[in-house]
Amino acid sequence: MTRDVAIIGVGMTKFGEFWERGYRSLITEAGSKAIIDAGIDGKDIDAVYVGSMTPGRLIGQEHVGALVADYAGLTGIPATRVEAACASGGLALHQAFLAIKSGLYDIVVVGGVEKMTDVSTEHATVALAGAADQEWEGFHGITFPGLYAMMARRHMIDYGTTEEQISMVAVKNHANGKLNPNAQFQYEVTLEDVLHSSMVADPLRLLHCSPITDGAATVVLASSEKAKKLCERPIWVRGSAIATDTLSLHERKSITRVEASIVAGKKAYEMAGVKPDDIDFAEVHDCFTIAEILAIESLGFCKMGEGGKTTENGETRIGGRIPINTSGGLKAKGHPVGATGIAQAIEATWQLRGQAEKRQVKGAKVGLAQNVGGSGATCTVHIFSPEK
Amino acid sequence: MTRDVAIIGVGMTKFGEFWERGYRSLITEAGSKAIIDAGIDGKDIDAVYVGSMTPGRLIGQEHVGALVADYAGLTGIPATRVEAACASGGLALHQAFLAIKSGLYDIVVVGGVEKMTDVSTEHATVALAGAADQEWEGFHGITFPGLYAMMARRHMIDYGTTEEQISMVAVKNHANGKLNPNAQFQYEVTLEDVLHSSMVADPLRLLHCSPITDGAATVVLASSEKAKKLCERPIWVRGSAIATDTLSLHERKSITRVEASIVAGKKAYEMAGVKPDDIDFAEVHDCFTIAEILAIESLGFCKMGEGGKTTENGETRIGGRIPINTSGGLKAKGHPVGATGIAQAIEATWQLRGQAEKRQVKGAKVGLAQNVGGSGATCTVHIFSPEK
Repeated sequence: MTRDVAIIGVGMTKFGEFWERGYRSLITEAGSKAIIDAGIDGKDIDAVYVGSMTPGRLIGQEHVGALVADYAGLTGIPATRVEAACASGGLALHQAFLAIKSGLYDIVVVGGVEKMTDVSTEHATVALAGAADQEWEGFHGITFPGLYAMMARRHMIDYGTTEEQISMVAVKNHANGKLNPNAQFQYEVTLEDVLHSSMVADPLRLLHCSPITDGAATVVLASSEKAKKLCERPIWVRGSAIATDTLSLHERKSITRVEASIVAGKKAYEMAGVKPDDIDFAEVHDCFTIAEILAIESLGFCKMGEGGKTTENGETRIGGRIPINTSGGLKAKGHPVGATGIAQAIEATWQLRGQAEKRQVKGAKVGLAQNVGGSGATCTVHIFSPEK
Repeated sequence: MTRDVAIIGVGMTKFGEFWERGYRSLITEAGSKAIIDAGIDGKDIDAVYVGSMTPGRLIGQEHVGALVADYAGLTGIPATRVEAACASGGLALHQAFLAIKSGLYDIVVVGGVEKMTDVSTEHATVALAGAADQEWEGFHGITFPGLYAMMARRHMIDYGTTEEQISMVAVKNHANGKLNPNAQFQYEVTLEDVLHSSMVADPLRLLHCSPITDGAATVVLASSEKAKKLCERPIWVRGSAIATDTLSLHERKSITRVEASIVAGKKAYEMAGVKPDDIDFAEVHDCFTIAEILAIESLGFCKMGEGGKTTENGETRIGGRIPINTSGGLKAKGHPVGATGIAQAIEATWQLRGQAEKRQVKGAKVGLAQNVGGSGATCTVHIFSPEK
């Protein structure tokens, strides 16, 4: 019987376009806030994990595990960078979870960070395309809007999903983002706005796409023994799982079925001893609005093919049957890729502590976070609860 | 009491300059060899770890954890890329060790890989400079030969270390590399050759520097229960530790004292219950020959400042008091950065199984591997033995 793991502190920067700030400034702010929130001291920390995808290509810096430990004043302790494209944060969270489970470390800080806006959008898009299969996809010129556009079109053909439904994800997530003081876009958009925004990759328009974002997020994890000692209301990591799929889209049997999300979800549900019906809210990876529809289907919140209808019915709104992306999601909160998986865990923590203010899901007892790398080659699923 | 972890299979490609081969071909070869060596089937594998530093900048590919699982035919299982510059391999080994210790995974495959020779040397040097502090070092134009040259010059001033002693590391490692069929350089060099090779960064000459290399290496780790069932002669991971230091050289109290290596070494010795005197041989990180001198000092194989003299005395040769880099080291075996830490574990395994052929250290019972990222901001130390 291995020990349990809890979140005892969280902290994040505002997400946005911060030309005046650098990578190390962002992660240091998020880390400091999490450490203060946990009420611990630097010397209590046994190890650091950092989820980050693009520092090599966007700021010329690799080796960011040691960098973050250095700038946090924690020089000496083990520090590990983990990368799985846009799932880097969720993957780092799983590694930190394993590190505590191993018995070698008791308190582990896990951060996610990306500094993306100091380069041209073209440069950022090319760097992000490193998440796809370079030999079979990237070299032929396809970028992520193109990959997700194919998934969206196929979903429309197979299930009758409409442009309106795909657009309603953006309308909902902007409405949630308006309530989130850390969101990049704190304003609403109408269905008309989304449907008339510029076409990016048919059928995906500008307002179906998450933005390029700077930001950082950090959580402090502790073993059950330490958590009980240090924290009045620990949030337990009840389930933590990763699964993979083929890197390239064309190798899959179906491009509308996110197999890695299905597999990781099943494992996480089993570990947590819960079913999809037990989940009170979820943060899912809406890098494009179609991805949220695929996510709620793959996690069992609705039947396959009914993600569009479920959204249209308002079931995923705050106050609905299963609120999705109360934070605003990647679409409105922003998507600093390495930070995203960690920020999802932070929103879950705030919801489960009852600290989500205007976004609060009433009576929330169990939350889920789903983080996706690339077009679904890596998925992580975490399940959190204030009860063990 | 957490469970023990053993190496049950190893495999590597030849190291070298392979213009006809790609990243995925290299790691697939190394992985297949390790799985065959372990005598296991793909379906036995619970998770994959990949240590790799530069795929984003040198081949346009991130997200290599999922890529490797995909090309190994292991789609579905958890796959994690770990990066800490040239210590990426050692760091991946530690994460795989933790994954088994956690109780969640029983058999974990950990590979290291780099494909570096399809770009200009200048491009590769700039990518590798991402291991240094970009704001304080990289942007001012310094590259790794320059950083290690400063460490070498300071060591010469403080301890009287000579150019001849620094060169003798290369002479010894080329002599060892000649005996290693996987080495990039399987030929000897004389002291005269080294002393008359072109100056790169005073006092470091071409033959003081490790080369740019393509290659991959993989080990299979298993829990004690699985190892005993599957393997006749498991090699136990008796110690596994990471430590960090400041990313930039100028922030350190001393630039000739590799503090992270000292700290990681102490932790690994303690975990293994051994002392430096108990180590029969070691693979250390000789990215530049001065680094081997710093390594043997920091690991306690000789006194601080006496690494040059210890080398000159022949104590680090095969047959000497403490054979160092029997594989040829990074200098002669080659240095595909992400693969290096894993290849060190493979050489240790071969030595401890008695399979090192002409390089065999007679009666070797305990081996050590030290892997360094950048100028020492990350160090990993592993201790291996056929006895638990």
